[in-house]
Amino acid sequence: MVITTQLIQVIAILISFLALGVAAWLYTWVKAQPSSNARIAEIGEYIRKGANTFLKREYLVLTRFAAVAALLILVLLPKPIWKGDIVSNILMAVSYIFGTVLSALAGKIGIQVATIANIKAAEAAKKGIKPSFMAGFRGGAVMGMAVVGTSLLGVTLVLMIVGDATSLLGFSFGASSLALFAKAGGGIYTKTADISADLVGKVELGINEDDPRNPAVIADNVGDNVGDVAGMGADLFDSNVASMAAALVMATSFGGAASQSAVSMVFAYAAIGLLASVIGVATARIGKDGDPSKALNSSTYVTTAIFAVLTAVVTYLFNFEWRIWGATAIGLLVGTVIGITSDYFTNDAKPPVHEVANASKSGPAFTILSGFSYGLLSSLPALIGIALSALLAYKVCAPLGEGYGMFGISMSALGMLSIVGMIISNDAYGPIVDNSRGLAEMGGFGEDVIATADELDSAGNTVKAVTKGFSISAAGLTVIALLGAFMSEVNTAAVEHGLVEAGQKFIDNFDIMNPTVFFGLIVGLAIPAVFSAMLMLGVDKNAQRMVGEIHRQFDTIPGLKEGREDAKPDYEKCIEIATAGAIKELIPAGLVAIFSTIAVGFIGGAQAIGGFLTGNIASGLLLALLMSNAGGLWDNAKKYVEAGNFGGKGSVAHKSAVVGDTVGDPFKDTAGPSINTQITVVSLVSSLLAVLFIQFSIF
Amino acid sequence: MVITTQLIQVIAILISFLALGVAAWLYTWVKAQPSSNARIAEIGEYIRKGANTFLKREYLVLTRFAAVAALLILVLLPKPIWKGDIVSNILMAVSYIFGTVLSALAGKIGIQVATIANIKAAEAAKKGIKPSFMAGFRGGAVMGMAVVGTSLLGVTLVLMIVGDATSLLGFSFGASSLALFAKAGGGIYTKTADISADLVGKVELGINEDDPRNPAVIADNVGDNVGDVAGMGADLFDSNVASMAAALVMATSFGGAASQSAVSMVFAYAAIGLLASVIGVATARIGKDGDPSKALNSSTYVTTAIFAVLTAVVTYLFNFEWRIWGATAIGLLVGTVIGITSDYFTNDAKPPVHEVANASKSGPAFTILSGFSYGLLSSLPALIGIALSALLAYKVCAPLGEGYGMFGISMSALGMLSIVGMIISNDAYGPIVDNSRGLAEMGGFGEDVIATADELDSAGNTVKAVTKGFSISAAGLTVIALLGAFMSEVNTAAVEHGLVEAGQKFIDNFDIMNPTVFFGLIVGLAIPAVFSAMLMLGVDKNAQRMVGEIHRQFDTIPGLKEGREDAKPDYEKCIEIATAGAIKELIPAGLVAIFSTIAVGFIGGAQAIGGFLTGNIASGLLLALLMSNAGGLWDNAKKYVEAGNFGGKGSVAHKSAVVGDTVGDPFKDTAGPSINTQITVVSLVSSLLAVLFIQFSIF
Repeated sequence: MVITTQLIQVIAILISFLALGVAAWLYTWVKAQPSSNARIAEIGEYIRKGANTFLKREYLVLTRFAAVAALLILVLLPKPIWKGDIVSNILMAVSYIFGTVLSALAGKIGIQVATIANIKAAEAAKKGIKPSFMAGFRGGAVMGMAVVGTSLLGVTLVLMIVGDATSLLGFSFGASSLALFAKAGGGIYTKTADISADLVGKVELGINEDDPRNPAVIADNVGDNVGDVAGMGADLFDSNVASMAAALVMATSFGGAASQSAVSMVFAYAAIGLLASVIGVATARIGKDGDPSKALNSSTYVTTAIFAVLTAVVTYLFNFEWRIWGATAIGLLVGTVIGITSDYFTNDAKPPVHEVANASKSGPAFTILSGFSYGLLSSLPALIGIALSALLAYKVCAPLGEGYGMFGISMSALGMLSIVGMIISNDAYGPIVDNSRGLAEMGGFGEDVIATADELDSAGNTVKAVTKGFSISAAGLTVIALLGAFMSEVNTAAVEHGLVEAGQKFIDNFDIMNPTVFFGLIVGLAIPAVFSAMLMLGVDKNAQRMVGEIHRQFDTIPGLKEGREDAKPDYEKCIEIATAGAIKELIPAGLVAIFSTIAVGFIGGAQAIGGFLTGNIASGLLLALLMSNAGGLWDNAKKYVEAGNFGGKGSVAHKSAVVGDTVGDPFKDTAGPSINTQITVVSLVSSLLAVLFIQFSIF
Repeated sequence: MVITTQLIQVIAILISFLALGVAAWLYTWVKAQPSSNARIAEIGEYIRKGANTFLKREYLVLTRFAAVAALLILVLLPKPIWKGDIVSNILMAVSYIFGTVLSALAGKIGIQVATIANIKAAEAAKKGIKPSFMAGFRGGAVMGMAVVGTSLLGVTLVLMIVGDATSLLGFSFGASSLALFAKAGGGIYTKTADISADLVGKVELGINEDDPRNPAVIADNVGDNVGDVAGMGADLFDSNVASMAAALVMATSFGGAASQSAVSMVFAYAAIGLLASVIGVATARIGKDGDPSKALNSSTYVTTAIFAVLTAVVTYLFNFEWRIWGATAIGLLVGTVIGITSDYFTNDAKPPVHEVANASKSGPAFTILSGFSYGLLSSLPALIGIALSALLAYKVCAPLGEGYGMFGISMSALGMLSIVGMIISNDAYGPIVDNSRGLAEMGGFGEDVIATADELDSAGNTVKAVTKGFSISAAGLTVIALLGAFMSEVNTAAVEHGLVEAGQKFIDNFDIMNPTVFFGLIVGLAIPAVFSAMLMLGVDKNAQRMVGEIHRQFDTIPGLKEGREDAKPDYEKCIEIATAGAIKELIPAGLVAIFSTIAVGFIGGAQAIGGFLTGNIASGLLLALLMSNAGGLWDNAKKYVEAGNFGGKGSVAHKSAVVGDTVGDPFKDTAGPSINTQITVVSLVSSLLAVLFIQFSIF
């Protein structure tokens, strides 16, 4: 069995390299696409420079954070250096740094390809849907393949070299802590620029979205890259690593052959997920005038089907437990159902979007109220789905022995995330074609080309809602599994510190009726709320600042409003405001999440942390689903009105719908998706510090 | 000790009658105040008629619901009629009906006095702040004394006559189920009318809030009464009964002398709370040009101090447990702190309101984003307060023996609610002076009188935020205690049905790691979200309908817009729309809460319900705090701009702030405060049906 495990790990590494190879090939392909327009090249260069500047400054701040964190880990974890052996601490710190570096790399690669693919897709839009789609999609796929390839590679290497699941938590924490700040910073940047550009440009002056006169237009396009590409990449890198880490921590705790088999399954399934994504990406096709949403969705379903079939084959060949395969399949199935219900609430062909657009006729307050209400309603199917998949996965696997129920839940999360390669490809496609639409307009490519780019852009929005449903739900299941990981860390540490005899358990439940658990739970509820509030207030404040700057430029630069040839807006100034604001705001929100965990742990010990994590999951899931879906709904309600319904552009309904869209922007692109990462970070901090919490706590 | 208990119960009954006597005296006093203006009498009559019509139709629907529920109770509870004795079932059904009747009565009394006090307060406003304040406050106090008097009387009688705590749950469920619908229906009514009147009147036509030309103006004033008076009265009647019921269920479970002592304490403290409120109401005074907010707050603090001192004296005299007094004092103290922090987030002298008003300069999207963010932030201190008081109350009382920890939490809730008489008085003061402001304007009393009425009105808003913080937190602690009550019901039922031996426990924890508990928890999260979404969509839809009707009247009634003498708006039509809409929408939302509990119970049994209740508490607390505080904040931000800041009336900031206020209206007056009742109902349904859930469930 040991041989099998190693064989599978080697195969996983090979498939990782295959994915990285495909990424390299796709990158070359994208780069080889024609681009000749000088104006676009110039603007594209602005965007690339802006994005790289931001990334550099962000990573500079994060390097300092990571250095401090690594130092603390070196001194304290897995055991305080004066109690344990230095080698374990060094390995843990190195794993942590390795996690941060790979996560940062994921963001960097994304920016690198996205800022090329946007130009290519804009240029290709002249020739029609098909070539433009391929440029956008393959650009996104570079990111997808690279992120999933490196995450699988990283996890495999850490486990093979260090050979210890706790170090995996360190690696995962490295990825998460970086993702937390990258997502928050990128999210604040992108929405600061987006809202400000729209507010002054579209709403006040009535000029087009990507009119080059608008001083914030470049910052807006930079934002798509640093928020939706780099931030999202770091985020999904983190989710993917965390789900594998949670499964592996539990798999290694079984001991002996059972562990070997469980570990093998994790790697086998993860590798198959990546392989399925590679095939899905490679086979993605669109007809000459095909529907880009259908093309994106169909390759997602192809990936899903390949994953289901291949895992069944491997389970049969290697004689794995069918029950565990069942748990994985449940995750995959429920993920698909959740994706479809999220789509229902955000698709502009469905009643909720129509209702919100209709309500907009009566003014912006009605847009907000109805959209917010549908956002709340949309949480129901997703929460039922998550609850059912956790329950079923547990029940299916529990008969295999102690600990298998929780392991089943973690495999269910892995099943949901199996197609993460496709998810990232689709997600990164969005900002690339959004950028290319902007470039087409700024380059003066004419109405037809812009219409083509518009169609590709709107497909990106629709698909995004589905993939977001997947990733929030998977994060939910992963943190449930991490709760199990936390408990097993506590019990291991308690034995090591002589708090209980070997073979005995320090804790074996988190009882809601225990007041310490309850205390943690109620406090935990507040954290995702405070975290998202801080991010949104960051956007709110920065955007006000940037709106002031745009007004200043239009007022003081002669001829800018009229579009005189010689009147150049000062793009850099807006880029600087977005950058400085995001850098300033990203740290406090992240620290609140980390320090509140530490405070609760030292107040109430392990039991309080069990409650605290549950509270975080509870309010985190609720808020993330509400914000993502309400945001997507408002966005599409605006587009639905713009398409000529309820009075079309310039009507009362349109003005109201724009307010909804503006509120929804930080909901869906700043706060909502960051909550995933926040709850993962909290879970990982808890597991890592479990050893300290059980020794030093007030209650 | 038995004699002491009975003595205390008799004293409780006497104090209840004292409170009812004070209510009757205050009612006579209010009625005796002068009122001579014919125009006001006419409009006042419209309002009274509208409110009573709504109440009649609402109670007709609720009678049918209550009849069905009573019949089901008769057949099934506490045991199915074919298994138990018919007498218990009859007693339970009668207790249930008694609860619904008293709750309905509370609403009816409130409407009766409020629709007189509004006229008197308007008339008195001619003579200045003092007489108008006294008319408004004493009108509110009638409601406060009547509600708390009947609730204490009802609970005491049920326990003395039936002698069984489970019937108390039936009584409490009667009160809650009625409150659920009354609060939902009243909340939909009031905000439908308020939003529509403001939107067309203030925003579109630029006429004053209570301009008699506006066809919705009477409906708006009716709404204040049916929502904020009748609905709120039923709601706090329910909270008060539920907190006593939870404490008494646990007190009676101790057995023997311990039970007697605990039961005595519950009644003694509840009676003292009522007595303290009577004194607080009787001593409320205001100087000739005094500050009404200060007068309201100072009588609240007086009540609090009297309660703390008197309970200490009684604890000393009767030799009660000081630890339990401690738990009560913790609740009182934390309630005050939570009230102060809620005030911080909604007071127009504090930074959050200024920030939101300032953000409004940049447009309505910024008003919404910043207000929503502060609403999220405001949940932090309240949640920490609730968590701490639960933890401390438990830890203080746990040394007294098994079950005392949970009993401590229920006493802590009782401590928070001890001043409920004052809370209701202050809460009912709000809509009365709001109405009187309207009457003063419609009666043409001139600028000075309206300014006086305005000042009294705005004091009502400030105080409301504080009392809401209290009541949400108390509801939170009560439902935590009800979780304990549910567990003890389950264990009692399990013994009776032979599932376990006598003295053994069927369940002794709700372990978050148990997938059935977790399943319930995640599903439970969705219920308050769905419930509040349904209410808000109800408001949204009805308000759109009413806006249409107001437009129709202004368009088709000649001379109405210009204010010609002979042009009369059709007030009844708007009242009819609000009534019909509210009646139609109130039932489904309530049923969702009840049926989802039943579904989860029959799927996952007692463990799933334990999780389900926790999920309800979690998302219920978060959403209720968010909505109440964000709503109050937006309201005051609008008032702050109207006071001349950031451009004052008519500026961009003002228009944006009005959007915020409109969104906040159903947040704070429809959905937010209904969630309290919803989570209480869910808890009570669970306890009542515990016996069925443990026998018939899938998992």
